[in-house]
Amino acid sequence: MAGNSIGKEFVFTSFGESHGKLVGAIVDGCPAGLPFSEVDVQADLDRRIPLQKPELVSGRVEKDFAQIQAGVFDGFTSGAPICMTVENKETNSSDYEAIRDLPRPAHADYTSRVKYGGFNDPRGGGRFSGRITVATIMAGALAKKLLSQFDVDVMAYTRSIGKIRTEKQLGFDQIRNSRYESAVRCPDIACAEKMEDDILEARKKGESLGGTVECIVLNVPAGIGEPLFDSLDGDLAKALFTVPAVKGIEFGGGFSLAEMQGSEANDAFQIQKGKVTTATNLSGGILGGISSGMPIIIRVAIKPTPSIAKEQHTVNLSKLENAKIKVSGRHDPCVVPKAVPAVEAAVAVTLADHMIRAGFISKIIKRKE
Amino acid sequence: MAGNSIGKEFVFTSFGESHGKLVGAIVDGCPAGLPFSEVDVQADLDRRIPLQKPELVSGRVEKDFAQIQAGVFDGFTSGAPICMTVENKETNSSDYEAIRDLPRPAHADYTSRVKYGGFNDPRGGGRFSGRITVATIMAGALAKKLLSQFDVDVMAYTRSIGKIRTEKQLGFDQIRNSRYESAVRCPDIACAEKMEDDILEARKKGESLGGTVECIVLNVPAGIGEPLFDSLDGDLAKALFTVPAVKGIEFGGGFSLAEMQGSEANDAFQIQKGKVTTATNLSGGILGGISSGMPIIIRVAIKPTPSIAKEQHTVNLSKLENAKIKVSGRHDPCVVPKAVPAVEAAVAVTLADHMIRAGFISKIIKRKE
Amino acid sequence: MAGNSIGKEFVFTSFGESHGKLVGAIVDGCPAGLPFSEVDVQADLDRRIPLQKPELVSGRVEKDFAQIQAGVFDGFTSGAPICMTVENKETNSSDYEAIRDLPRPAHADYTSRVKYGGFNDPRGGGRFSGRITVATIMAGALAKKLLSQFDVDVMAYTRSIGKIRTEKQLGFDQIRNSRYESAVRCPDIACAEKMEDDILEARKKGESLGGTVECIVLNVPAGIGEPLFDSLDGDLAKALFTVPAVKGIEFGGGFSLAEMQGSEANDAFQIQKGKVTTATNLSGGILGGISSGMPIIIRVAIKPTPSIAKEQHTVNLSKLENAKIKVSGRHDPCVVPKAVPAVEAAVAVTLADHMIRAGFISKIIKRKE
Amino acid sequence: MAGNSIGKEFVFTSFGESHGKLVGAIVDGCPAGLPFSEVDVQADLDRRIPLQKPELVSGRVEKDFAQIQAGVFDGFTSGAPICMTVENKETNSSDYEAIRDLPRPAHADYTSRVKYGGFNDPRGGGRFSGRITVATIMAGALAKKLLSQFDVDVMAYTRSIGKIRTEKQLGFDQIRNSRYESAVRCPDIACAEKMEDDILEARKKGESLGGTVECIVLNVPAGIGEPLFDSLDGDLAKALFTVPAVKGIEFGGGFSLAEMQGSEANDAFQIQKGKVTTATNLSGGILGGISSGMPIIIRVAIKPTPSIAKEQHTVNLSKLENAKIKVSGRHDPCVVPKAVPAVEAAVAVTLADHMIRAGFISKIIKRKE
Repeated sequence: MAGNSIGKEFVFTSFGESHGKLVGAIVDGCPAGLPFSEVDVQADLDRRIPLQKPELVSGRVEKDFAQIQAGVFDGFTSGAPICMTVENKETNSSDYEAIRDLPRPAHADYTSRVKYGGFNDPRGGGRFSGRITVATIMAGALAKKLLSQFDVDVMAYTRSIGKIRTEKQLGFDQIRNSRYESAVRCPDIACAEKMEDDILEARKKGESLGGTVECIVLNVPAGIGEPLFDSLDGDLAKALFTVPAVKGIEFGGGFSLAEMQGSEANDAFQIQKGKVTTATNLSGGILGGISSGMPIIIRVAIKPTPSIAKEQHTVNLSKLENAKIKVSGRHDPCVVPKAVPAVEAAVAVTLADHMIRAGFISKIIKRKE
Repeated sequence: MAGNSIGKEFVFTSFGESHGKLVGAIVDGCPAGLPFSEVDVQADLDRRIPLQKPELVSGRVEKDFAQIQAGVFDGFTSGAPICMTVENKETNSSDYEAIRDLPRPAHADYTSRVKYGGFNDPRGGGRFSGRITVATIMAGALAKKLLSQFDVDVMAYTRSIGKIRTEKQLGFDQIRNSRYESAVRCPDIACAEKMEDDILEARKKGESLGGTVECIVLNVPAGIGEPLFDSLDGDLAKALFTVPAVKGIEFGGGFSLAEMQGSEANDAFQIQKGKVTTATNLSGGILGGISSGMPIIIRVAIKPTPSIAKEQHTVNLSKLENAKIKVSGRHDPCVVPKAVPAVEAAVAVTLADHMIRAGFISKIIKRKE
Repeated sequence: MAGNSIGKEFVFTSFGESHGKLVGAIVDGCPAGLPFSEVDVQADLDRRIPLQKPELVSGRVEKDFAQIQAGVFDGFTSGAPICMTVENKETNSSDYEAIRDLPRPAHADYTSRVKYGGFNDPRGGGRFSGRITVATIMAGALAKKLLSQFDVDVMAYTRSIGKIRTEKQLGFDQIRNSRYESAVRCPDIACAEKMEDDILEARKKGESLGGTVECIVLNVPAGIGEPLFDSLDGDLAKALFTVPAVKGIEFGGGFSLAEMQGSEANDAFQIQKGKVTTATNLSGGILGGISSGMPIIIRVAIKPTPSIAKEQHTVNLSKLENAKIKVSGRHDPCVVPKAVPAVEAAVAVTLADHMIRAGFISKIIKRKE
Repeated sequence: MAGNSIGKEFVFTSFGESHGKLVGAIVDGCPAGLPFSEVDVQADLDRRIPLQKPELVSGRVEKDFAQIQAGVFDGFTSGAPICMTVENKETNSSDYEAIRDLPRPAHADYTSRVKYGGFNDPRGGGRFSGRITVATIMAGALAKKLLSQFDVDVMAYTRSIGKIRTEKQLGFDQIRNSRYESAVRCPDIACAEKMEDDILEARKKGESLGGTVECIVLNVPAGIGEPLFDSLDGDLAKALFTVPAVKGIEFGGGFSLAEMQGSEANDAFQIQKGKVTTATNLSGGILGGISSGMPIIIRVAIKPTPSIAKEQHTVNLSKLENAKIKVSGRHDPCVVPKAVPAVEAAVAVTLADHMIRAGFISKIIKRKE
């Protein structure tokens, strides 16, 4: 066991359950002397809920409040482990016993029961709830604050919902400024409206939708990433598979590269303003597991929410016989909008770790006085 | 730094350079009492080179010989670290100085020079050569031997080369028995021939091709994988990004799930012969980061070999000016066939680690007498 | 940075500061299905303060209350990370600014200021306070509960205070039952009284005392400990150096073995009731870094409390000139009594980790129903 | 399992067996650009055998030759894992089967057999032989070369053998220059002669002797060490318990501090030549787990060699009955002289790791050209 920590220098430990007392994050290894407060965390936490259109997500839209419990002193990180928590408030879990034996298809109900011998907290999905991303987002807020001191900019947005995909060439500024403008977190506003319609349509039918999220990271210096196994792409992938419902990941040209010829796929090097850059960026900013200095480009595939109103086939685990289930309660018809800040956070946490590991961020941001 | 080890219980450390003395693997944490010898390693090593058609790969087809240097006693693993090495023989590196300043596009030449301040061994790609998969394959051979005691079966094959993709529904037995029959490692023999033609055609044009590899793992029990961060899919992804040229990864339905509706994507649970299974397997055998007991299905995208005979644009790193390069020497026009055993090895190493971590493999296979 | 976690399977992370909001412990990797509640934690927490004679310790005797924040469900560990906290109540820190520039001799004031660039929380010693053992004791309470399922019994006691040492041959039952009877945690009651007198005498003189603590662990099976580096003695030593003021550690005969001859030092093996035991136990239950099945015997040396009322020489760090300091405030004239439960906890946490690592404790205590 | 690596940045993995093909060390994470060659390793390796008086050690005095197998290119570390090996030559293991069932008292024979289910390599002690320090010494030679770039000086010497102890106040220069002059590695030459006599006397009687080794480290800057658990003293202790036969460790005043009063034990701070120092150094250069800038002072207790010619009581493990054993073959009557370079190496490896972790050594020593 013991898989709830990630990172080697900027070590993030996630704890808490969906319907328990709280959800929390501890970061050990954040350099001392970084200005940091609850305001920094709250900003990212608020991005989880698309208040523009709460009907796009489950009813659970009550605001989460971040609290820093340790590791920050007089407005700066102190070098001690930083603990951040959010209390759970909407935790009406009265009915979980009834469905304990009926695992929801495509959920972790069955696998977690097997793994933990039936002792895992099943209320609201326990540790397997999308709510656990609250911890990731808090750690990500700290990581972003740290990265921002070095001009590193992490920004994710919704690229597709179901079959609707933005085909517009979106500029970095547009993505940065508009990605949280629409409830679906797609900066192409015309496209966003179609996405919203499709989500509401799916909900009406008792269905759900998936989609893809793209994340772009600007200003990562060349030389970040530790071969062989702690490669930048390998560690980003590992971190991103913790965002619930992610089933695929690609960098730069990704799967499309498999169909190209070498001369099409290779990014030519060129000198631009005295710096080494590439003419194209099909490598997505990573070569040999190490950042090249070009923007890092990541795309993840998110499956449709497993919880749907339609009746489904399942089994009764106690009786070992076939059964049917209708998943009741509040459910997001599409988790992609909530995944956007979680993707940003997972990427930021990984980059903060690797920037420190590669020696680009020192152990003390700057000495006091 | 220090990223050359992977795993928490079955810990694999890779060392050696492409044109140095040797390439080697150390595995610490392999249970004691596993029958193991050089024969086991050699079998998998031999699968790297498609002897059926050596023209599909670079000229470097001399056989690699595996040696066990430590950790095996009287035919069984002893509980001590297991060290396996292969000597490098074909290491004509006379000309690397000439191109030191001209990074090959889409290679790690530039990023590794930045990262190691110019001290990295550039001969034949050094640590960034495809040859480093020899170490992975040796560790994988040990992992497979261990997994085979528990009937776990890891098998990868070429699913596509460039635009040629096998669309046949391949049975598990066919994949197991025929995957190394064709030089391109595609068990659909008709398709394999087309792939071979395309590769030779690409070579003739000074081009290269990529492709996709699918890996299927049978008989992994339900309950393997450590949430949150050491999830089975996360750790498999991390390990697979060490196979050179991998740019994308997906599990089960992968990216296609992003376009489905919930009722299409959800695998219904059912009882089959008294066991919990699912009617479909779009989850690829993993739910919530934990194995479900269904076959694990992984697909990786491999970009075309960066080394092509065609002239390309690059830069001169000393003069910081634009330049041109024609990559000479021996190069695989397509690395996909060589990636197949490396993918199997990376998957096997990860599963061995996780089977031990989850308590499914004990620290001693069985006590002596 | 990032050194606030210990263990590979039973991973304990400590957080919080002496005068911050709270002190907390997270344990990731505790097997699921262990009965556990706040009552278990409280019992050990209460042993920190020798209520029999509060004048032996600092004035800070207000009771600490343990809260389980996550990881326990319906009275059993759930397999999720277990978070336990204690709020800080007595945190009158008004005067720390005054002494910021005057490091207390033999304290961490100077080294922590250098390490964290002046950003560390200095209030009450921050992360370097003896109060941080509260976190260790909470993690230790969980570890002890786990170990108790396997009859492993961890018991420490005060062996000497200053120059007063118990020379009585104490039986295991006496140690188990009487170690917390006296305020100084010495089960030899006559000796305990002398120790108490000496501590009060030292306080009167503005002085402080150190001492030694012995820890005995019964019923650890043979075969625990991972050579080479994660040896049982090596990992116990590492854990024990986190107990404040520990400056030495020895196992079994320890330093006295350095003066013996082989025939005196070697513990002869013998069969007792069909089991392999040794006639003597100068090895302290550990051979080659692995438990032998005999009681584990550890002794630690604890220096006198650095905070004393007497005037001492120090420096002014801002002015870089010599200075004098009189440490005011509440201070323990002897930290040995408080160290006893902390030593037990550090040992228990290490053993829980190693019992799991060696495969003696499985990942699920027992399956539900 | 998997305990054969140590360190988080400068990661040393030990492999090989006493009578197997070789003994080896891999260091992952050594900065690139450090000048390093086999000459550096050989110098320290040669210090294992006191050629002045080979009769003080076992007959095995054939010279070990270090080979660098990977990680060094053109005379500098390349940033890749560094692999160093020594072949075993004197490996006459014909008779180990005879004594397999008769564990030698105070050896790891019994505990290793239990741990590895009888599969461990028993020849010459296998992984539990003193010969395994060859790997530590090779890694230590690399660490020392790295530390020497920052003027850090690690020097150990024999402080006592049996009841003979040097009471002379030895200067740092004398220790540095004379510690390998005498066969027993004691720079107090008059004392060294008495030690040698006592060892030869013990051998004649079929006995063995232990002793103590002191290690002093100069010029470690203040601020090294990661609280709470990766403290400098904790990590040094952990590393030192891998030196065979170590049963105790203390820093600075160590166990004697337990009997002092605060005013005696506290090292007063003072300004010397504009730097913060302490008037005494009973803390041994470490406060709160962090280096203070004063010399680090460590003392370890080494038990007498367990292998003695005298007949001893043991058990027959197959028959589970009492038995007797006379350990034949070559044995050191005292391992203390061989422990001296091993102690230096263990300390150097730990300091190299912590200097990198604390940010005092960067990832590239200096960029090429």
